[in-house]
Amino acid sequence: MLSDEILQSLIVRNDRKIVLIVADGLGGLPRDLDGKTELETAAKPNLDSLAAKSICGMTVPISPGITPGSGPSHLALFGYDPVKYQIGRGVLEALGIGLAMTPQDLAARANFATRDGQGVITDRRAGRIPTERNMDLCRLLQEAIPSIGDVEVIIRHGKEHRFVVIFRGEGLSGGLPDTDPQKEGLMPVIPSALFDDMAKTVRVVTEFTERANKALAGQSPANTILLRGLAKHPDVPSMAERFGLRAAAIAAYPMYKGLAKLVGMTELETGQTIEEEFETLRLYYRDFDFFYLHVKKTDSHGEDGNFSAKAQVISELDGCLPAATKLEPDVIAFTSDHSTPAKLKGHSWHPNPFLLHSQFALFGGVDEFTERNCARGGLGIFPAVEAMPLMLAHAQKLAKFGA
Amino acid sequence: MLSDEILQSLIVRNDRKIVLIVADGLGGLPRDLDGKTELETAAKPNLDSLAAKSICGMTVPISPGITPGSGPSHLALFGYDPVKYQIGRGVLEALGIGLAMTPQDLAARANFATRDGQGVITDRRAGRIPTERNMDLCRLLQEAIPSIGDVEVIIRHGKEHRFVVIFRGEGLSGGLPDTDPQKEGLMPVIPSALFDDMAKTVRVVTEFTERANKALAGQSPANTILLRGLAKHPDVPSMAERFGLRAAAIAAYPMYKGLAKLVGMTELETGQTIEEEFETLRLYYRDFDFFYLHVKKTDSHGEDGNFSAKAQVISELDGCLPAATKLEPDVIAFTSDHSTPAKLKGHSWHPNPFLLHSQFALFGGVDEFTERNCARGGLGIFPAVEAMPLMLAHAQKLAKFGA
Repeated sequence: MLSDEILQSLIVRNDRKIVLIVADGLGGLPRDLDGKTELETAAKPNLDSLAAKSICGMTVPISPGITPGSGPSHLALFGYDPVKYQIGRGVLEALGIGLAMTPQDLAARANFATRDGQGVITDRRAGRIPTERNMDLCRLLQEAIPSIGDVEVIIRHGKEHRFVVIFRGEGLSGGLPDTDPQKEGLMPVIPSALFDDMAKTVRVVTEFTERANKALAGQSPANTILLRGLAKHPDVPSMAERFGLRAAAIAAYPMYKGLAKLVGMTELETGQTIEEEFETLRLYYRDFDFFYLHVKKTDSHGEDGNFSAKAQVISELDGCLPAATKLEPDVIAFTSDHSTPAKLKGHSWHPNPFLLHSQFALFGGVDEFTERNCARGGLGIFPAVEAMPLMLAHAQKLAKFGA
Repeated sequence: MLSDEILQSLIVRNDRKIVLIVADGLGGLPRDLDGKTELETAAKPNLDSLAAKSICGMTVPISPGITPGSGPSHLALFGYDPVKYQIGRGVLEALGIGLAMTPQDLAARANFATRDGQGVITDRRAGRIPTERNMDLCRLLQEAIPSIGDVEVIIRHGKEHRFVVIFRGEGLSGGLPDTDPQKEGLMPVIPSALFDDMAKTVRVVTEFTERANKALAGQSPANTILLRGLAKHPDVPSMAERFGLRAAAIAAYPMYKGLAKLVGMTELETGQTIEEEFETLRLYYRDFDFFYLHVKKTDSHGEDGNFSAKAQVISELDGCLPAATKLEPDVIAFTSDHSTPAKLKGHSWHPNPFLLHSQFALFGGVDEFTERNCARGGLGIFPAVEAMPLMLAHAQKLAKFGA
């Protein structure tokens, strides 16, 4: 991999268009029934015929054997070294729901949760309360805790039991462990400072939790809160700076909008269905030269262990694909950020099937877009962070290195 | 590759079991007769059927084109960057024959050898004298050279012509070239200091050789000694520290026992046959969660250029394989540290066939466990040092990286 500086020095700006479609958690594992993966099970004539005209391979999100979170795995696909740019989930959630962050800010993802009389967490998600209830509770919390000392507190609801807290003030630091104990039946984790300069952050987080417990005392089931991914805003150069791209994001979920904003993409308003996302691509097609289109439900069904629902989403996505191909972008890349096999009910380390379609791609040999076929494709098995230089090259956006 | 620190931060301790079987020097080259390699020639029904249910690939021990010694190639398989952790062969031999080393110690492998009246080496192995003779000569040397100035000298016999010397004292350093000229018909290499701080070491090694020559003057054929792999004990974190593993080694040869001890594995007592090694695995199976089982003879026959003997050892090993698979470890990896093609009569740079069996492996496409089939496997061609993260991942011993 070339250094960021050298890569940046080779950038050529032109109007050629790149469409990157990310089917979240796409890669899977064989089911017992017939030894087929989700992707091998789905009907996907459009993807298969696109694969036959594309160069294929497998991307390794971070490093072999490493299971990535959505943050690092997306950054890698966007061409950012995921080890160099480590980003707290709190930051991503905050960006995703439209909270602008300043360099002072410390962000956290938060859950409404249920605790018993002893303070033991009995439900980490407070029974997945409806979003409307969440909105009411966030208003209640915001009124009860407008600030902690000189630190401003900004609370914004998410979906179901999820919300975001931003602590805005001098001298806050990231890196504090989650207060979420990760399992029911345990007490919340009490914040403690690893380093001297975390003392203020520990005080603020501790007081926030105590005051939230008081404010929620009468509520049920959402009578406490848990904090996760406490992090400050990292300094990430934009895709415009790094790759000369006018980049736009089409994503329905906050987390992915947040990721896209972090690298300076313009967020395009879209709907909740895959079809609406492709319609958004069509609507804005003239206005940008890089599109990131994110499909979430492949991952969600994988996380739920629902093999056939995941296969069905793949088929649904396949049906939408012609809406992108008929725009005739110079480059279409279709892949995933990480695998989420239904068998594992969670993210996994397995590489992701990847296809790149372009008139300059040396295609051939892969007739079906599956994990096992892509593993034998012309791109081989390669680090996800190298997908971006490959897309740029096929869109003729990279100059020669050396004379 | 993730840094050691990040990888270590992701470690999850659980009871899942990993069995790593290393057939030393396994990879080969086609013979003229029929264009088949040793592995392609061997009858190995068990390995082939295991490969069909495993994900396969090829490991590159160090870097493409680089022929490794046994030390670096094993360290890579154990998950240690072989360039970061460079370990002298003297250290490995010393550890292997049970000599405890201190940080002061400088260790060397030594050979009894034959020299003529001019001091030219006529036999680097003194006709491979019997081990009993070696024991007598080592006693003789130890009596003649108990110390050199303030440096204590510890001599311990090995097999045939091999022994180990430890120089114990202040101010010794590693990195001195071997006195062994590597070829018969040459004079021994005279030690000389590359850096100022090596002067004492040069004096000690020079005096040791001179006094050994005097003490052995009346002996034949073992009338001199050659030193190799002069090295200090490196500071290597254990597999328990790095990977949270309770690791055990099943190896018949000193060198490999030494390597295993170096990374903190427990050495299990075993016999000299492959069958006995697998019986040892069965006996201790409950007590550890990582097993390294080393088979030496594939390499020995490769070194001797004995193609069919090497193929026969592969078949013998194949016959023992069910003793491991019927234990149903969560992960079985079968591979080699490096290739030793009979055609080359020595270690080589060729990648090693690798298979990983686990319920979470995306198997398929490789029906025969051979070099050429594994090269088309789902893992592709990858650095050997990444085998450990892959084994850990498939045993679910690695947490998610990032949110």
